[in-house]
Amino acid sequence: MNYLEERILAEGIVKPGNVLKVDAFLNHQLDIGLLRWMGAEWKRRFAGRPINKILTIEASGIGLAVAAAEQFEVPAVFAKKGESINIDGDVYRAEIESFTRQNKSQVIVSKRFLGPDDHLLIVDDFLANGCALQGLLAICAQAGATVEGIGIAIEKGFQPGGQIIRNLGCRLESLAIVDAMSAETGRIVFRPQG
Amino acid sequence: MNYLEERILAEGIVKPGNVLKVDAFLNHQLDIGLLRWMGAEWKRRFAGRPINKILTIEASGIGLAVAAAEQFEVPAVFAKKGESINIDGDVYRAEIESFTRQNKSQVIVSKRFLGPDDHLLIVDDFLANGCALQGLLAICAQAGATVEGIGIAIEKGFQPGGQIIRNLGCRLESLAIVDAMSAETGRIVFRPQG
Repeated sequence: MNYLEERILAEGIVKPGNVLKVDAFLNHQLDIGLLRWMGAEWKRRFAGRPINKILTIEASGIGLAVAAAEQFEVPAVFAKKGESINIDGDVYRAEIESFTRQNKSQVIVSKRFLGPDDHLLIVDDFLANGCALQGLLAICAQAGATVEGIGIAIEKGFQPGGQIIRNLGCRLESLAIVDAMSAETGRIVFRPQG
Repeated sequence: MNYLEERILAEGIVKPGNVLKVDAFLNHQLDIGLLRWMGAEWKRRFAGRPINKILTIEASGIGLAVAAAEQFEVPAVFAKKGESINIDGDVYRAEIESFTRQNKSQVIVSKRFLGPDDHLLIVDDFLANGCALQGLLAICAQAGATVEGIGIAIEKGFQPGGQIIRNLGCRLESLAIVDAMSAETGRIVFRPQG
């Protein structure tokens, strides 16, 4: 069992509706030691890939992207949700639907920060249905950028996102894959990793 | 001139409406070397303070909070905007108005992550009118937490937020204070720092 899996078992809380609360260490309060470990683990798993930029989506991906940027020594870019007067019109744009928030939103990335020369590692905290990731992949395709890999903290293995992403031919490294969980008993079952 | 000021002069863009775009390195694309420098600079400026937690607000504060957490070796907490089904009802809550987005929003922090034993460094990317900071201070007051200091990347010295915060007796360290800027000429004037 790896460090993230240990933390999920110790501090994660399973709630009804397939919700796994990890806000004590991953997406509300952030444990810096755990972030460092995750960044280093992605660095190890994607060794040899010519990654020159980390891409994520606000808000909870940002901490992970900075932790990865620390290890890869490259800039991080986070896609923004909705429109801001601080963003110029010249953006890549995709529509995504959030499983957690049950709404649709636009995500945008300025064209100045992604292009055909970029080799990206995409990171995010959760992969469930994969909607957010599909939006980021759509933006990467618009930019002509190469997706070298996708690093996820927690994949819900009982939802289709992981399989969809792997079927697309993307190299996906989820640091913890939850194959089953129960709000009644609190039990969490991880997929064994090599 | 410090490293952040140099980067603002080199890559910042002044737009009409008192907007300073720093999205190439601070709040859309994140330069990891600059983040590290800012974290280390806050660590130096707040040396000796018994800081046990970093507090910020999503989304653009998160990168800075992680950079500060790296230096202080403490957890970071980010206040969330709006309500999410992943947040329990037991939260501190404040209303803030955004200068950039020209709207009002609720910010919330789970009561599990802030309390009377906490000694906080609050960080954010911009301080203009101070509305976001006032919301975070309101949340700290509800929690009974001690605010040891406030670390800002860029303070707009020609707007009232900095003075309001200092008048409240808070120790405020802005790494760059812009006293004047012009969208017509692109000129940016920094307040001298010791």
